[in-house]
Amino acid sequence: MKIAILGGTGPQGKGLALRFAAAGVDVVLGSRDGARAEEIAQELNGLQPDVSGVISGTDNSAATSAADELVILAVPFSAHNATLEAIKPDLAGKVLVDIVVPLADGDPKALNMPPEGSATEAAQALLGEEIPVVGALHNVSATTLNNLEHSINCDILVCGNDLAAKEKVIDLINMLDIKAYNAGPAVNARCIEAITPILIRLNISKKVPFSHAGVKIWAPDH
Amino acid sequence: MKIAILGGTGPQGKGLALRFAAAGVDVVLGSRDGARAEEIAQELNGLQPDVSGVISGTDNSAATSAADELVILAVPFSAHNATLEAIKPDLAGKVLVDIVVPLADGDPKALNMPPEGSATEAAQALLGEEIPVVGALHNVSATTLNNLEHSINCDILVCGNDLAAKEKVIDLINMLDIKAYNAGPAVNARCIEAITPILIRLNISKKVPFSHAGVKIWAPDH
Repeated sequence: MKIAILGGTGPQGKGLALRFAAAGVDVVLGSRDGARAEEIAQELNGLQPDVSGVISGTDNSAATSAADELVILAVPFSAHNATLEAIKPDLAGKVLVDIVVPLADGDPKALNMPPEGSATEAAQALLGEEIPVVGALHNVSATTLNNLEHSINCDILVCGNDLAAKEKVIDLINMLDIKAYNAGPAVNARCIEAITPILIRLNISKKVPFSHAGVKIWAPDH
Repeated sequence: MKIAILGGTGPQGKGLALRFAAAGVDVVLGSRDGARAEEIAQELNGLQPDVSGVISGTDNSAATSAADELVILAVPFSAHNATLEAIKPDLAGKVLVDIVVPLADGDPKALNMPPEGSATEAAQALLGEEIPVVGALHNVSATTLNNLEHSINCDILVCGNDLAAKEKVIDLINMLDIKAYNAGPAVNARCIEAITPILIRLNISKKVPFSHAGVKIWAPDH
């Protein structure tokens, strides 16, 4: 299995690449600068030489084409729509997994949602209904992802309008030993993306005795 | 300490009344029908005769006046604005704790947010800045609240524009042995209220092996 991670040279993308490679998935990092992606890929492979998945790097378009089916978009929100416009022709037959959170410029405790309501909805509007968009992996800490000795303290709320695509993404996430839930249609990304700045607020707060908080769906004891 | 719970004859209101009375807080249930509130109050007192807090019942306006400071609004969203209009004169000097989630008519897995963005923001707009509104307790299961043998599997995300008011509400919630977090300004109610229909979706789902789900802020193991 081979997936692409666009914006794969950022902290979230690198952490996901390491985790998926450790789970036996081949990962193609994409970047505007393909040489830079290749360099980062070699660094990441060097961090864990004995894992089964191979990390490679190239430009965003080639990375998208190289993916079997699942293409994770992990760019900053400022590059969200431009990246999607650029790779749209390469996405035919694939699923776009949007993990982008539209944080406000200069204040990661606040949002600057696009007119469509959320990044996931903006992606779906831009790509059209033939390319399913699944929102996922918004709330997991990049620090924790990159810290392979630690398990991931975050359940994943997965949303989108195409059930089959969501189920593929849930299966992929389950490979990381993370629980993932079908959290409904794409409109629910307005909530799920918005959890991230609340977690960032708690991470910064002096009243909360930890950072890198995640969110968990908590079963009752009855 | 005496608090009011308006819409206190519904499942969320009754459960909160039982929990707060068990924690030693006097509770005045409010309802449009004061006699009905009094009747429910006596029923609830009968359920746990040896607790220290007393539950009484009256109409919404008298209940608001009777509260020391904190007035919890637990009516269905269809009655949200009308109830606030009716009690606004009684709220001077008090804090309105809004626990209402604007669920869509006929579909508890979906929202019908008011033009202000959330119930909490609608309440703050309606009451004006002199009466602080705090959003809280949106995501906790009424069934679990009413089931006193069980601990509450839900952290509480508290939001609002008045820090002192939020801290009072956090202190109140802590009396129930529930963790409560300052989750930022009132605008964050758009996210926090929206978690509830996602939990309802999971509760209904055949793929999720439990119902009455809550949400937890999950500390990392590092």
